[in-house]
Amino acid sequence: MSLVVQKYGGSSLSDAESIKRVARRIVDARKAGHDVCVVVSAMGDTTDDLLDLANEVSPLPPAREMDMLLTAGERISMALVAMAIANLGSTVRSFTGSQAGVITDDTHGKARIIDVTPGRITSAIAEGHIVIVAGFQGVSQGSKEITTLGRGGSDTTAVALAAALDADVCEIYTDVDGVYTADPRIVPAARQIGHISHEEMLELAASGAKILHLRCVEYARRFDMPIHVRSSFSHQEGTWVGGSNPEGDSVEDPIIGGVAHDRSEAKITVVGVPDSPGKASEIFQAVADAQINIDMIVQNVSATETGLTDISFTLPSTDGQTAIQALTRLQEGVGFTQLQYDDQIGKVSLVGAGMRTHPGVSATFFRALAQAGINIEMISTSEIRISVVTRGDQLDEAVRAVHSAFGLDSSQGEAVVYGGTGR
Amino acid sequence: MSLVVQKYGGSSLSDAESIKRVARRIVDARKAGHDVCVVVSAMGDTTDDLLDLANEVSPLPPAREMDMLLTAGERISMALVAMAIANLGSTVRSFTGSQAGVITDDTHGKARIIDVTPGRITSAIAEGHIVIVAGFQGVSQGSKEITTLGRGGSDTTAVALAAALDADVCEIYTDVDGVYTADPRIVPAARQIGHISHEEMLELAASGAKILHLRCVEYARRFDMPIHVRSSFSHQEGTWVGGSNPEGDSVEDPIIGGVAHDRSEAKITVVGVPDSPGKASEIFQAVADAQINIDMIVQNVSATETGLTDISFTLPSTDGQTAIQALTRLQEGVGFTQLQYDDQIGKVSLVGAGMRTHPGVSATFFRALAQAGINIEMISTSEIRISVVTRGDQLDEAVRAVHSAFGLDSSQGEAVVYGGTGR
Repeated sequence: MSLVVQKYGGSSLSDAESIKRVARRIVDARKAGHDVCVVVSAMGDTTDDLLDLANEVSPLPPAREMDMLLTAGERISMALVAMAIANLGSTVRSFTGSQAGVITDDTHGKARIIDVTPGRITSAIAEGHIVIVAGFQGVSQGSKEITTLGRGGSDTTAVALAAALDADVCEIYTDVDGVYTADPRIVPAARQIGHISHEEMLELAASGAKILHLRCVEYARRFDMPIHVRSSFSHQEGTWVGGSNPEGDSVEDPIIGGVAHDRSEAKITVVGVPDSPGKASEIFQAVADAQINIDMIVQNVSATETGLTDISFTLPSTDGQTAIQALTRLQEGVGFTQLQYDDQIGKVSLVGAGMRTHPGVSATFFRALAQAGINIEMISTSEIRISVVTRGDQLDEAVRAVHSAFGLDSSQGEAVVYGGTGR
Repeated sequence: MSLVVQKYGGSSLSDAESIKRVARRIVDARKAGHDVCVVVSAMGDTTDDLLDLANEVSPLPPAREMDMLLTAGERISMALVAMAIANLGSTVRSFTGSQAGVITDDTHGKARIIDVTPGRITSAIAEGHIVIVAGFQGVSQGSKEITTLGRGGSDTTAVALAAALDADVCEIYTDVDGVYTADPRIVPAARQIGHISHEEMLELAASGAKILHLRCVEYARRFDMPIHVRSSFSHQEGTWVGGSNPEGDSVEDPIIGGVAHDRSEAKITVVGVPDSPGKASEIFQAVADAQINIDMIVQNVSATETGLTDISFTLPSTDGQTAIQALTRLQEGVGFTQLQYDDQIGKVSLVGAGMRTHPGVSATFFRALAQAGINIEMISTSEIRISVVTRGDQLDEAVRAVHSAFGLDSSQGEAVVYGGTGR
């Protein structure tokens, strides 16, 4: 008998009817012979409603109490899902994150899972129950305080539980059919990906694909846990992330996984930095001290006659103001000329494990952008990814150009230069 | 430094504004030099909303999951109250019933508190925090399951915590000013009681007074914990239940505490029961087996020529149908003639510790009813209480007649036959 971990997000649990629909799905999985452990998010708008209430009573609520408050959301949905399952005649037990053994550090609001001790869950499963677990929450190791995991927390809970329970698969149910070769709202010809590696998914998530959170994919890769991303509104196969390709591995595996884009970043350029050792270090230490994650960095070739250089980097635009303040305090010490801030940028990324062995990929990529008349402002690459920064208003066109150049458009079929992208 | 336990009900926590008002009250108590532990109910209609959701997904939800669901209500209100207190600059920690050490039996939906181990609360208080505790909930001793305490559960939590923490007083905040000599909606001349004993309050609660639940008063009497019932909407003194009378004990203490009424009962008469040993026992065993609590019992004098007797008893009218079914199954075995069911009854009760030593009380009571033209159908007495059953549509008049006959009307002042009722 196999063990399946399923996770349902808030959009699949928006009201009583959708809860009953999810319950039927869960019971179907049980009746198909699987042991089932289900992780749920809070219903629809519950979390937003609770945040509104919090803001009404306090402009800056303590993080500990915010976690107490928000964890009520998943508690409500897990109990309702359990009730709906019981009403279908199956035996079921719900557990909070704390009861499920999700042990975290003590960083309220964005705790990290440091251990999973699912003793109560394995007992309940052994007794024949379907198990429902509240996602997004845990209990801190030392002080036994209730914590929440922050963005992507419910997906991460599901993968962590799947790993701890040695499940066969972690199914992430959402409101789309799976992972696509590009965002279908921008590229109508985008195709659903049948199978993608953990590494490629990690690069896609890091490059702006929103379907799975980076943390969840990182966790899945670390524990080699296959994820099946699929729609809770249909019974079609979704996208398999990691694990063996259900279509069989073959030399014909696609070179390119997909195209991701990101509109949430801004670019800061520090102009006229003295070209002497230690200056870049001072600049990036100041940004790191402000708890800001930097994405791409470009240092221009020094203009030797002046002894000055320009350093550009991208960062989440929500951190823009903080970064500018931190750098302004540094201006006299470092001796740079000025700061330029630009949030009208976009980033397009091409991800594919096949890049490692196919040297023509970057050439095709840059040619596609050039032919579409798109100027490249910054470039960054990894072993399986190429990303470039463009003007924000050219981003959609850039995504479409790249998607088409690599034969990913559905009208292009499988027989294209670099191969298809799965099923 | 004294320790005060306060309890705020849902009507005092209906929205963000009232939560902020309650927070100011709590901080005021802290600033007045008290250590403060606060028990909160769920906000306004939260519990009803959660029950509605539960009914939408399942007509008969498992009790365990219902407890998981409902406990989210107090979790939300405790976190919001804590946030509002923090916003006023005080340091605060909220705790669930489980974290607060409220240990119960494992009867989901109406668990009984069997122990309180408030280690985390005493630590938090010792560290200078105001403590907020979710009422109505606990954790079962053996299986560590989340439980709820059923009706009156938050008041009972407050009294139990006050006893465990050895508090000086348990303040129960509500939306009325205190305990009155009768329900002011029926007796406009009813007066607020300044001080009443635990025993009298127990009889009033058992006789239909709704301001404090029986369980909470029982708990307070057992641990000799004074309760101060007062309004969260004013700063007036409310009613002290138990403890020493703040006005000083005196021989002039009132004989009569107050008049309670109850419209929630029904009467069943078993007609034509063979007058032989064991018949009454069979009847009441059947009712007890159906988990029904009986209030008053009257057996008529046997009509010796027939060898038959009638037995009447009162019970909550919500249990009426169950009782009739249980008794119908018994008809052949016991051999009674028929069952009569009557839910058009009312009960009026006079409660007063002074009855013990003042023999004229019952005579005055019956005369008052007779003069008002009210027929008495059943009578039951305890050492400090007289209760009678009347027609339901005569109940209001009966309450007013008794209230007036014992000099409780506010216009009658203190100088009445049997003395006043308080300060």
